[in-house]
Amino acid sequence: MGQTIQIEKANSLKEKPDVSTVKFGTVFTDYMFTSDYTPEHGWEEPAIVPYKNLEISPAANGIHYGQSVFEGLKAYRNGEDILLFRPDENFKRLNTSLERLAMPKINEETSLNALYELIKLERDWVPDGPGQSLYIRPFIFADEAFLGVRSARTYKYNIILSPVAGYYGGQLDPTSIYVEDDYVRAVRGGVGDIKCAGNYAASILAQQKAAELGYEQVLWLDGVEQKYVEEVGSMNIFFVRNNELITPKLNGSILSGITRKSLIQLAEYKGYTVKEERILLDDLRDGLRDGSISEIFGSGTAAVISPIGRMNVHGEDYVVNDNQVGPVAQDLYDHYTGIQYGTLEDPFGWIVKL
Amino acid sequence: MGQTIQIEKANSLKEKPDVSTVKFGTVFTDYMFTSDYTPEHGWEEPAIVPYKNLEISPAANGIHYGQSVFEGLKAYRNGEDILLFRPDENFKRLNTSLERLAMPKINEETSLNALYELIKLERDWVPDGPGQSLYIRPFIFADEAFLGVRSARTYKYNIILSPVAGYYGGQLDPTSIYVEDDYVRAVRGGVGDIKCAGNYAASILAQQKAAELGYEQVLWLDGVEQKYVEEVGSMNIFFVRNNELITPKLNGSILSGITRKSLIQLAEYKGYTVKEERILLDDLRDGLRDGSISEIFGSGTAAVISPIGRMNVHGEDYVVNDNQVGPVAQDLYDHYTGIQYGTLEDPFGWIVKL
Repeated sequence: MGQTIQIEKANSLKEKPDVSTVKFGTVFTDYMFTSDYTPEHGWEEPAIVPYKNLEISPAANGIHYGQSVFEGLKAYRNGEDILLFRPDENFKRLNTSLERLAMPKINEETSLNALYELIKLERDWVPDGPGQSLYIRPFIFADEAFLGVRSARTYKYNIILSPVAGYYGGQLDPTSIYVEDDYVRAVRGGVGDIKCAGNYAASILAQQKAAELGYEQVLWLDGVEQKYVEEVGSMNIFFVRNNELITPKLNGSILSGITRKSLIQLAEYKGYTVKEERILLDDLRDGLRDGSISEIFGSGTAAVISPIGRMNVHGEDYVVNDNQVGPVAQDLYDHYTGIQYGTLEDPFGWIVKL
Repeated sequence: MGQTIQIEKANSLKEKPDVSTVKFGTVFTDYMFTSDYTPEHGWEEPAIVPYKNLEISPAANGIHYGQSVFEGLKAYRNGEDILLFRPDENFKRLNTSLERLAMPKINEETSLNALYELIKLERDWVPDGPGQSLYIRPFIFADEAFLGVRSARTYKYNIILSPVAGYYGGQLDPTSIYVEDDYVRAVRGGVGDIKCAGNYAASILAQQKAAELGYEQVLWLDGVEQKYVEEVGSMNIFFVRNNELITPKLNGSILSGITRKSLIQLAEYKGYTVKEERILLDDLRDGLRDGSISEIFGSGTAAVISPIGRMNVHGEDYVVNDNQVGPVAQDLYDHYTGIQYGTLEDPFGWIVKL
């Protein structure tokens, strides 16, 4: 089923940067994957080519009408081994996103093979510092030169790679969040549960507002009643309540995070009780007041786990776990990243070794 | 305040097509406007250059995270005169869209001047057939090569032009609509009230579903309670109820259409009573049953007025005004397009003559 992937060699290679000083998502490697879609031939000419600018029509439909989806995952180095974490899940979710925006689905196997080829070619770009990794960004957008609202006929599919430092240099560090009452991230029946471009632009103003008020992230409430907890920043959210791990139940507007899903599995494996619930903001606040909520953290590919030390609910500030990294967050983070970097056993079959 | 606009001449000009056979938004003229934004210099190098492909980084932030907004307006020909309809309103709304997505605002006067220069240069592209016009598409997107969710540092601003036939060759023709119960277009606190790329991609699947069921457009309900009427397709919606013109009141999730606003003003000028209300779908259905709703039509730049002849509400089909163009729709359409094409007096100061 897999297509043959052509490789076009670069004439010269870039100098590799000191990853510890690189800003997230600003440096890219020597090669990228590319494939174009036409209604006649489907996804064709899958190839690995030198990283270069794209030439697109100013009328490219994806720019005007937002048919544009992406994924994010990472490659980790353990000595000479390069490890990928559940890459099949990313391509599966990419197809879910594509379907929701009426875009043509990809062949997941071809994509996986292309990714493996690309990472093998770029293996020297996978950094080895603490918390460092090679960030992988598959993305697809409509490039048909056409101004109109319908599913486009042609698309571009690329995978680009960016060496990144750990969010906290491999150390967890508590962040602060602001409960957003005005702006809404998503609503059931919308597109909050997929990784499409439009979701993120819509969130920036709330993020700026939180920053002006002195908070690092936004806590998003549901779009219907604005009283249930949904996500934090662009991460899923977890709570430790009476030693149980709680996370909002997927409801059509929350992204089904691969880190979320994997953390649930890992936590259960480690003996934690995990519950997926509708979580009222009021109950969360009460739990912070009476001490039954002992930890809060976000989860996502970029940071894995982001402990929350301070939270503003309707103007009132609550300190979580003394603004320290909690034991559950630390325990799950250590185990999870241990599996990702190959220093701990992977009992789940999550790791692909290249 | 206005910046000087450089003009780079094309070596050769394209052959102009027979506009009556051109598909909407697929043919573009010889020139386009371009300006780039940097934090250091703001919007700089405003220029009119030959229409050509854009070269952008595969990491261009707008493609990944959706900071991308646009406008749509038209130039009309009356003999040797070229007429624009309220172009200032489009650049004002462009700024509203830019603000909501945390993008840098444009200078509206510079934009208007640039547009006038561009249209003067391209005046031969403004067609003269019935219902024909030159569609104008200003758009701005983030082009910083950066993978991360924050306001980008650099942006591209372009205006491109496309000669278009009338939606109905200048004749109104009733369409059919399907009330969408599952998919949601927008919710208050979101971005439904601006023209950003993400809104449109999110609507395509519902549009496809309506088409499969035999309807041409989607009627969108509010995102909170899913029982109030909001928009139809990518148009605002109007009803004639007991000879009064009714349209949903702006509520933060409905686009503030320039055609909507102008039709309200024109209708009042012509002696119609116009009401902006929250409109329950149930009341609309009751009005179709008892005959108090005599017409329904969409309004937007592309079609001006799009009469609705058939409507599916929760599986039941209602015929509106015998599936004929209603007298109010026809009256407003004739007067409105008469002003746009300069065949009727413009008592509002809407028209800019070039």
